[in-house]
Amino acid sequence: MDDDDLRRGRPTTHKAYGEATAILVGDALQGEAFRVLATAPDIDAELRVRLIEVLARAAGWQGMVGGQHLDIAGADDVREIHDRKTGALLAASVEAGAIVGGADATAVAAFRTFGSELGWLFQLVDDLLDEVGTDEELGKPSGSDRRHDKRTAVATHGGVDGLRTTVEEQRDVCLRLALGLPNDGGALGSIVEYIAARDR
Amino acid sequence: MDDDDLRRGRPTTHKAYGEATAILVGDALQGEAFRVLATAPDIDAELRVRLIEVLARAAGWQGMVGGQHLDIAGADDVREIHDRKTGALLAASVEAGAIVGGADATAVAAFRTFGSELGWLFQLVDDLLDEVGTDEELGKPSGSDRRHDKRTAVATHGGVDGLRTTVEEQRDVCLRLALGLPNDGGALGSIVEYIAARDR
Repeated sequence: MDDDDLRRGRPTTHKAYGEATAILVGDALQGEAFRVLATAPDIDAELRVRLIEVLARAAGWQGMVGGQHLDIAGADDVREIHDRKTGALLAASVEAGAIVGGADATAVAAFRTFGSELGWLFQLVDDLLDEVGTDEELGKPSGSDRRHDKRTAVATHGGVDGLRTTVEEQRDVCLRLALGLPNDGGALGSIVEYIAARDR
Repeated sequence: MDDDDLRRGRPTTHKAYGEATAILVGDALQGEAFRVLATAPDIDAELRVRLIEVLARAAGWQGMVGGQHLDIAGADDVREIHDRKTGALLAASVEAGAIVGGADATAVAAFRTFGSELGWLFQLVDDLLDEVGTDEELGKPSGSDRRHDKRTAVATHGGVDGLRTTVEEQRDVCLRLALGLPNDGGALGSIVEYIAARDR
């Protein structure tokens, strides 16, 4: 199998069931996500439509789809690509929690910023592990992103050592943002530490 | 160009911009549709979440995605495939109008049934035109669906003459259903006639 055919040690959907079915599954899951939000029990309809708008922007051309387009179009800005490809959905999930929890507009914006920076931390660690992780830990061959010429953060952060430093700096950015949230960010600080320290 | 590369006389998106971009555009438009519904002005949030649920079911595994899966999996039931691939979205659009217009549950169900039967009429006419229309009228080479071994209604309705009869019967089914709707279906009857008589 090609490197692209494994995720967490298991064959990808497009390998196991074929390209057409994999694309259909993605389409189905997108619609299903909106259906689940639209029919969520015990959440006011006014909040449900806000959640749907947040998810639509994160998943759509403003977010994930736009980032994927930048990626395949060969854009140079690694941060921009990943803010949209992966950061937008992570920021949206944090923002959604704030909305459901009844946070005011200022707090919702702060949660969203935290989520976006957390997404970038996640991506930096992902790129670091792609260089230094073992195949067994990663569930896919290490170095596969670099070998596929994906635009990783290693190249733009002075190699592995530079990237390690950037990860630590970004962890601190996230921890400071968490402390600025209501209730000192609750459990979010430990999520930052978890993501910064993960080895798979 | 291959037959599959033209729609209404113009190159398809996947031909003009490539497969990856075409898939991304589809993903983007799906999310955008939900965003538009979630933020629709002058519609109560309670109605907006109902519209989103209706669209999600019509587009998702319960509807279009499920129909496409049946199609590529080689299912035999032409009506089932098209009810889900194209009928579900048409039924949903009629149902959505009924919901926004404040119809009660019984009327919403009647509008939905009408929309579903209208979708089947549309598909029957599509299959008929694929056999008897000219390339110029269709914007794609006639017979292309049959040549691509798509499961068309011609084969299951005793050829072109049998299919013409079926189209007329289905037109009458739709007209009767329209007359059973509030206000005798308003302009929906003329939409039935338009679809039954279209030649492109």
